[in-house]
Amino acid sequence: MKTDPASHQRMTEKRKAGFEKKKAAATGEKGLLIVNTGTGKGKSSAAFGMGLRAVGHGMRLGVVQFIKGALHTAERDLLGGFDNCDFHTMGEGYTWNTQDREADIATARKGWAQALAMMESEDYDMVILDELNVVLKYEYLPLDEVLAAFAVRPAMQHVVVTGRHAPEALLEAADLVTEMRLVKHPYREQGIKAQRGVEF
Amino acid sequence: MKTDPASHQRMTEKRKAGFEKKKAAATGEKGLLIVNTGTGKGKSSAAFGMGLRAVGHGMRLGVVQFIKGALHTAERDLLGGFDNCDFHTMGEGYTWNTQDREADIATARKGWAQALAMMESEDYDMVILDELNVVLKYEYLPLDEVLAAFAVRPAMQHVVVTGRHAPEALLEAADLVTEMRLVKHPYREQGIKAQRGVEF
Repeated sequence: MKTDPASHQRMTEKRKAGFEKKKAAATGEKGLLIVNTGTGKGKSSAAFGMGLRAVGHGMRLGVVQFIKGALHTAERDLLGGFDNCDFHTMGEGYTWNTQDREADIATARKGWAQALAMMESEDYDMVILDELNVVLKYEYLPLDEVLAAFAVRPAMQHVVVTGRHAPEALLEAADLVTEMRLVKHPYREQGIKAQRGVEF
Repeated sequence: MKTDPASHQRMTEKRKAGFEKKKAAATGEKGLLIVNTGTGKGKSSAAFGMGLRAVGHGMRLGVVQFIKGALHTAERDLLGGFDNCDFHTMGEGYTWNTQDREADIATARKGWAQALAMMESEDYDMVILDELNVVLKYEYLPLDEVLAAFAVRPAMQHVVVTGRHAPEALLEAADLVTEMRLVKHPYREQGIKAQRGVEF
């Protein structure tokens, strides 16, 4: 897309005008319900990247990891080290290791109690509920109860929900939904194993 | 997807077996070329979330932000505060504010010089080139030159490239590609403005 300087300037002026118009029309502020879903990578990383940003601004961040795995310990060690971040990790590993539905439900309940405590408090500016979608998919928590809690949380509190298979009713309730779509993945195509810094 | 305990156990056993099989087949290690693209949110956040993880592991992280904007300062303030992270921000704001192609090219060149210095060094375990795709899209840097530098970087170095409109040849060269797809966005649908912690 090489252009001469004059047409480049026309193009950038037009783009700038469109950007300014859109910005002027958007004046509202509210706590957003944000969902990162899809089968691609980056759902949790994007949530933690947003959390990092919030912590950097001095906002108070709460995190509940509903599915632990050995994978996300570096984020926890680092983000959890800040005074304005509370980081809770629940879960005895992925459900396909647990093989016990009642135990999984009890674990999900424990995580949900933590989430509720944070969503009932005005102190938290952002709450990340990592892998909650997976918990909902398996019906370890009732969707209605979860949506009802989101609906009555503090008006300016952002909630970020991650995980594959976000339920349709959650997508409907959400303000911002991103699908991470897998285009190419080295596990499958090149036999590359999970690596430090990339997957965990 | 409610199931009785026995069928739940069969299902989880089957899933676990599939997971273990896939894991056993993946034994390789290498520096990955990772691309986050698409028009949805989370491309940069996911990259910085991965960077956060790397820094948490004590790996050395380098970042070049090719397009500054006022937007990503919180990440920079926070990640840049760690000894094992070098964070460089280039660019005089988005191109549609600059309206000067030659100046944009010079700015891109400056950022690229920083990127090259990090990619030529064995010291950096991960290099994030934030919004490089946009620079490539506008041909502020020659794609061939960029791909050539990726090809000769240290074998174990991860490079993460973000931005809309990743060029096809970059996708072909990449090991891991995720498309962030916009499903729902509050700017357009609800007139919500950019908010602290979410967009900047």
